[in-house]
Amino acid sequence: MEARISMVTLGVSDVQKSFDFYSKVVGFPSEKGIEGGVVAFFQLKNILFSLYPRDKLAEDALVANDGSGFSGVTLAYNVKSKQEVDDIIEKLHWAGVKVTKEPQDVFWGGYHAYFQDPDGNLWEVAWNPFFEIE
Amino acid sequence: MEARISMVTLGVSDVQKSFDFYSKVVGFPSEKGIEGGVVAFFQLKNILFSLYPRDKLAEDALVANDGSGFSGVTLAYNVKSKQEVDDIIEKLHWAGVKVTKEPQDVFWGGYHAYFQDPDGNLWEVAWNPFFEIE
Repeated sequence: MEARISMVTLGVSDVQKSFDFYSKVVGFPSEKGIEGGVVAFFQLKNILFSLYPRDKLAEDALVANDGSGFSGVTLAYNVKSKQEVDDIIEKLHWAGVKVTKEPQDVFWGGYHAYFQDPDGNLWEVAWNPFFEIE
Repeated sequence: MEARISMVTLGVSDVQKSFDFYSKVVGFPSEKGIEGGVVAFFQLKNILFSLYPRDKLAEDALVANDGSGFSGVTLAYNVKSKQEVDDIIEKLHWAGVKVTKEPQDVFWGGYHAYFQDPDGNLWEVAWNPFFEIE
Protein backbone atom coordinates (compact mmCIF):
# COMPACT_ATOMS: atom_id res chain seq x y z
CA MET A 1 0.00 0.00 0.00
CA GLU A 2 1.21 3.49 -0.79
CA ALA A 3 1.63 6.05 1.94
CA ARG A 4 -1.71 7.81 2.12
CA ILE A 5 -5.04 8.01 3.91
CA SER A 6 -7.70 8.98 1.39
CA MET A 7 -10.53 9.77 3.76
CA VAL A 8 -11.43 9.91 7.44
CA THR A 9 -15.07 9.06 8.17
CA LEU A 10 -16.76 9.62 11.49
CA GLY A 11 -19.74 7.45 12.35
CA VAL A 12 -22.04 9.92 14.08
CA SER A 13 -25.29 9.66 16.02
CA ASP A 14 -26.96 12.64 14.34
CA VAL A 15 -25.68 13.68 10.91
CA GLN A 16 -27.48 17.04 10.92
CA LYS A 17 -26.08 17.96 14.32
CA SER A 18 -22.56 16.91 13.33
CA PHE A 19 -22.84 18.63 9.98
CA ASP A 20 -23.81 21.88 11.70
CA PHE A 21 -20.88 21.46 14.06
CA TYR A 22 -18.28 20.88 11.35
CA SER A 23 -19.64 23.41 8.87
CA LYS A 24 -20.71 26.21 11.20
CA VAL A 25 -18.55 25.88 14.31
CA VAL A 26 -15.37 24.39 12.90
CA GLY A 27 -15.91 26.08 9.54
CA PHE A 28 -15.08 23.26 7.14
CA PRO A 29 -16.34 23.72 3.57
CA SER A 30 -19.00 21.41 2.17
CA GLU A 31 -20.11 21.87 -1.41
CA LYS A 32 -23.19 19.69 -1.36
CA GLY A 33 -24.27 19.66 2.29
CA ILE A 34 -25.94 16.50 3.54
CA GLU A 35 -26.52 14.21 0.59
CA GLY A 36 -29.52 11.88 0.58
CA GLY A 37 -30.15 12.85 4.18
CA VAL A 38 -27.33 10.62 5.38
CA VAL A 39 -23.84 11.56 4.29
CA ALA A 40 -21.74 14.70 4.16
CA PHE A 41 -18.33 15.22 2.61
CA PHE A 42 -15.86 17.96 3.36
CA GLN A 43 -13.05 18.32 0.83
CA LEU A 44 -10.23 19.56 3.02
CA LYS A 45 -6.91 20.72 1.66
CA ASN A 46 -5.13 17.46 2.24
CA ILE A 47 -7.82 14.86 2.85
CA LEU A 48 -11.48 14.06 2.38
CA PHE A 49 -13.46 14.10 5.62
CA SER A 50 -16.93 12.62 5.91
CA LEU A 51 -19.84 12.12 8.28
CA TYR A 52 -22.11 9.11 8.13
CA PRO A 53 -24.60 7.58 10.59
CA ARG A 54 -22.73 5.38 13.03
CA ASP A 55 -25.04 2.38 12.56
CA LYS A 56 -24.75 2.58 8.80
CA LEU A 57 -20.98 2.91 8.98
CA ALA A 58 -20.76 -0.19 11.18
CA GLU A 59 -23.03 -2.00 8.74
CA ASP A 60 -20.90 -0.86 5.80
CA ALA A 61 -17.83 -2.42 7.41
CA LEU A 62 -19.76 -5.45 8.63
CA VAL A 63 -18.87 -4.90 12.27
CA ALA A 64 -21.08 -4.68 15.35
CA ASN A 65 -22.12 -1.16 16.33
CA ASP A 66 -20.89 -1.41 19.90
CA GLY A 67 -18.42 0.61 21.93
CA SER A 68 -18.72 3.97 23.59
CA GLY A 69 -16.58 6.50 25.38
CA PHE A 70 -13.06 7.23 24.18
CA SER A 71 -12.74 5.90 20.64
CA GLY A 72 -8.96 5.65 20.70
CA VAL A 73 -8.64 8.03 17.75
CA THR A 74 -7.69 11.68 17.74
CA LEU A 75 -7.51 14.16 14.90
CA ALA A 76 -5.05 16.99 15.09
CA TYR A 77 -5.22 20.53 13.78
CA ASN A 78 -1.84 22.21 13.94
CA VAL A 79 -1.40 25.97 14.01
CA LYS A 80 1.43 28.47 13.76
CA SER A 81 1.45 29.97 17.24
CA LYS A 82 0.33 29.56 20.85
CA GLN A 83 -1.90 32.57 20.36
CA GLU A 84 -3.73 30.78 17.58
CA VAL A 85 -4.45 27.85 19.91
CA ASP A 86 -5.89 30.30 22.47
CA ASP A 87 -7.96 32.13 19.86
CA ILE A 88 -9.52 28.97 18.46
CA ILE A 89 -10.36 27.54 21.86
CA GLU A 90 -11.85 30.82 23.01
CA LYS A 91 -14.15 30.85 19.98
CA LEU A 92 -15.11 27.23 20.58
CA HIS A 93 -15.99 28.03 24.18
CA TRP A 94 -18.25 30.81 22.98
CA ALA A 95 -19.91 28.35 20.61
CA GLY A 96 -20.63 26.03 23.55
CA VAL A 97 -18.14 23.36 22.52
CA LYS A 98 -16.82 20.94 25.11
CA VAL A 99 -13.13 21.61 25.68
CA THR A 100 -11.58 18.65 27.52
CA LYS A 101 -8.18 20.29 27.95
CA GLU A 102 -7.60 24.00 28.11
CA PRO A 103 -4.63 25.45 26.21
CA GLN A 104 -1.40 24.61 28.00
CA ASP A 105 2.26 23.86 27.55
CA VAL A 106 3.07 20.22 26.83
CA PHE A 107 6.11 18.28 28.02
CA TRP A 108 7.39 17.76 24.45
CA GLY A 109 7.81 21.48 23.94
CA GLY A 110 4.53 22.40 22.32
CA TYR A 111 1.30 24.03 23.41
CA HIS A 112 -2.10 22.48 22.88
CA ALA A 113 -5.74 21.96 23.82
CA TYR A 114 -8.41 19.40 23.02
CA PHE A 115 -12.07 19.74 22.16
CA GLN A 116 -14.81 17.25 21.36
CA ASP A 117 -17.32 17.10 18.55
CA PRO A 118 -20.97 16.20 19.31
CA ASP A 119 -20.07 12.47 19.42
CA GLY A 120 -17.06 12.96 21.64
CA ASN A 121 -14.50 12.61 18.85
CA LEU A 122 -11.36 14.35 19.96
CA TRP A 123 -9.57 17.14 18.12
CA GLU A 124 -6.24 18.42 19.31
CA VAL A 125 -5.39 22.02 18.47
CA ALA A 126 -1.64 22.21 18.67
CA TRP A 127 1.26 24.53 18.22
CA ASN A 128 4.30 22.36 17.61
CA PRO A 129 7.61 24.16 17.13
CA PHE A 130 8.95 21.08 15.33
CA PHE A 131 6.04 20.78 12.91
CA GLU A 132 6.03 22.89 9.78
CA ILE A 133 2.71 24.32 8.62
CA GLU A 134 2.44 24.81 4.89
CA MET B 1 -10.25 26.97 11.39
CA GLU B 2 -8.76 26.27 7.98
CA ALA B 3 -9.71 23.17 6.07
CA ARG B 4 -7.17 20.59 7.13
CA ILE B 5 -6.47 17.65 9.43
CA SER B 6 -2.79 17.72 10.39
CA MET B 7 -2.52 14.30 11.96
CA VAL B 8 -4.49 11.17 12.75
CA THR B 9 -3.36 9.41 15.93
CA LEU B 10 -4.47 5.95 16.95
CA GLY B 11 -4.40 5.10 20.64
CA VAL B 12 -3.18 1.49 20.60
CA SER B 13 -2.84 -1.24 23.18
CA ASP B 14 0.63 -2.37 22.06
CA VAL B 15 2.75 0.14 20.17
CA GLN B 16 5.30 -2.44 19.01
CA LYS B 17 2.60 -4.71 17.63
CA SER B 18 0.84 -1.85 15.88
CA PHE B 19 4.12 -0.47 14.58
CA ASP B 20 4.96 -3.84 13.05
CA PHE B 21 1.52 -3.95 11.51
CA TYR B 22 1.68 -0.51 9.92
CA SER B 23 5.31 -0.68 8.85
CA LYS B 24 5.58 -4.30 7.75
CA VAL B 25 2.09 -5.37 6.74
CA VAL B 26 0.61 -2.11 5.49
CA GLY B 27 4.01 -0.82 4.40
CA PHE B 28 3.90 2.75 5.67
CA PRO B 29 7.29 4.50 5.95
CA SER B 30 8.65 5.47 9.35
CA GLU B 31 11.96 7.30 9.51
CA LYS B 32 12.63 6.98 13.21
CA GLY B 33 10.71 3.87 14.25
CA ILE B 34 9.31 3.85 17.77
CA GLU B 35 10.59 6.90 19.60
CA GLY B 36 11.19 6.73 23.33
CA GLY B 37 9.50 3.35 23.34
CA VAL B 38 6.08 4.95 23.08
CA VAL B 39 5.33 6.85 19.92
CA ALA B 40 5.70 6.26 16.20
CA PHE B 41 5.14 8.68 13.34
CA PHE B 42 4.51 7.86 9.72
CA GLN B 43 4.87 10.79 7.35
CA LEU B 44 2.35 9.86 4.66
CA LYS B 45 2.00 11.78 1.42
CA ASN B 46 -0.90 13.89 2.59
CA ILE B 47 -1.03 13.55 6.36
CA LEU B 48 0.96 12.61 9.43
CA PHE B 49 -0.16 9.34 11.00
CA SER B 50 0.88 8.31 14.49
CA LEU B 51 0.61 5.52 17.04
CA TYR B 52 0.59 6.16 20.77
CA PRO B 53 -0.44 4.05 23.78
CA ARG B 54 -4.17 4.29 24.26
CA ASP B 55 -3.95 5.13 27.97
CA LYS B 56 -1.41 7.87 27.34
CA LEU B 57 -3.49 9.31 24.51
CA ALA B 58 -6.56 9.44 26.75
CA GLU B 59 -4.44 11.09 29.44
CA ASP B 60 -3.07 13.58 26.91
CA ALA B 61 -6.60 14.67 26.03
CA LEU B 62 -7.79 14.48 29.64
CA VAL B 63 -10.55 11.98 28.89
CA ALA B 64 -11.34 8.63 30.50
CA ASN B 65 -9.83 5.62 28.77
CA ASP B 66 -13.09 3.75 28.36
CA GLY B 67 -14.94 2.41 25.37
CA SER B 68 -14.35 -0.66 23.29
CA GLY B 69 -15.63 -2.29 20.15
CA PHE B 70 -16.38 -0.20 17.08
CA SER B 71 -14.73 3.18 17.54
CA GLY B 72 -17.00 5.00 15.10
CA VAL B 73 -14.03 6.03 12.96
CA THR B 74 -12.86 4.59 9.67
CA LEU B 75 -9.84 5.42 7.56
CA ALA B 76 -10.04 4.95 3.83
CA TYR B 77 -7.41 3.96 1.33
CA ASN B 78 -8.61 4.52 -2.22
CA VAL B 79 -7.17 2.72 -5.21
CA LYS B 80 -7.41 2.91 -8.97
CA SER B 81 -9.14 -0.37 -9.81
CA LYS B 82 -11.21 -3.24 -8.48
CA GLN B 83 -8.24 -5.49 -9.12
CA GLU B 84 -6.12 -3.42 -6.78
CA VAL B 85 -8.69 -3.90 -4.00
CA ASP B 86 -8.53 -7.66 -4.57
CA ASP B 87 -4.73 -7.70 -4.64
CA ILE B 88 -4.37 -5.78 -1.41
CA ILE B 89 -6.92 -7.85 0.46
CA GLU B 90 -5.36 -11.08 -0.78
CA LYS B 91 -1.98 -10.00 0.57
CA LEU B 92 -3.53 -8.98 3.88
CA HIS B 93 -5.18 -12.38 4.17
CA TRP B 94 -1.81 -14.03 3.66
CA ALA B 95 -0.40 -11.81 6.40
CA GLY B 96 -3.09 -13.02 8.79
CA VAL B 97 -4.97 -9.75 8.90
CA LYS B 98 -8.63 -9.75 9.92
CA VAL B 99 -10.76 -8.80 6.92
CA THR B 100 -14.25 -7.87 8.12
CA LYS B 101 -15.68 -7.45 4.63
CA GLU B 102 -14.40 -9.22 1.55
CA PRO B 103 -14.08 -7.25 -1.69
CA GLN B 104 -17.49 -6.62 -3.19
CA ASP B 105 -19.55 -4.19 -5.22
CA VAL B 106 -21.17 -1.42 -3.21
CA PHE B 107 -24.57 0.17 -3.85
CA TRP B 108 -23.06 3.57 -4.62
CA GLY B 109 -21.22 2.20 -7.61
CA GLY B 110 -17.85 1.36 -6.14
CA TYR B 111 -16.07 -1.76 -4.98
CA HIS B 112 -14.54 -2.15 -1.55
CA ALA B 113 -13.41 -4.22 1.41
CA TYR B 114 -12.54 -3.55 5.05
CA PHE B 115 -9.77 -4.80 7.26
CA GLN B 116 -8.84 -4.20 10.90
CA ASP B 117 -5.58 -3.27 12.52
CA PRO B 118 -4.50 -5.01 15.76
CA ASP B 119 -6.79 -2.75 17.81
CA GLY B 120 -9.78 -3.19 15.56
CA ASN B 121 -9.43 0.17 13.81
CA LEU B 122 -11.13 -0.08 10.46
CA TRP B 123 -9.56 0.60 7.10
CA GLU B 124 -11.65 0.62 3.97
CA VAL B 125 -9.87 -0.26 0.73
CA ALA B 126 -12.00 1.23 -2.00
CA TRP B 127 -12.22 1.68 -5.71
CA ASN B 128 -14.48 4.65 -6.28
CA PRO B 129 -15.15 5.59 -9.90
CA PHE B 130 -16.07 9.11 -8.76
CA PHE B 131 -12.92 9.65 -6.71
CA GLU B 132 -9.79 10.80 -8.45
CA ILE B 133 -6.47 9.35 -7.27
CA GLU B 134 -3.51 11.65 -7.73
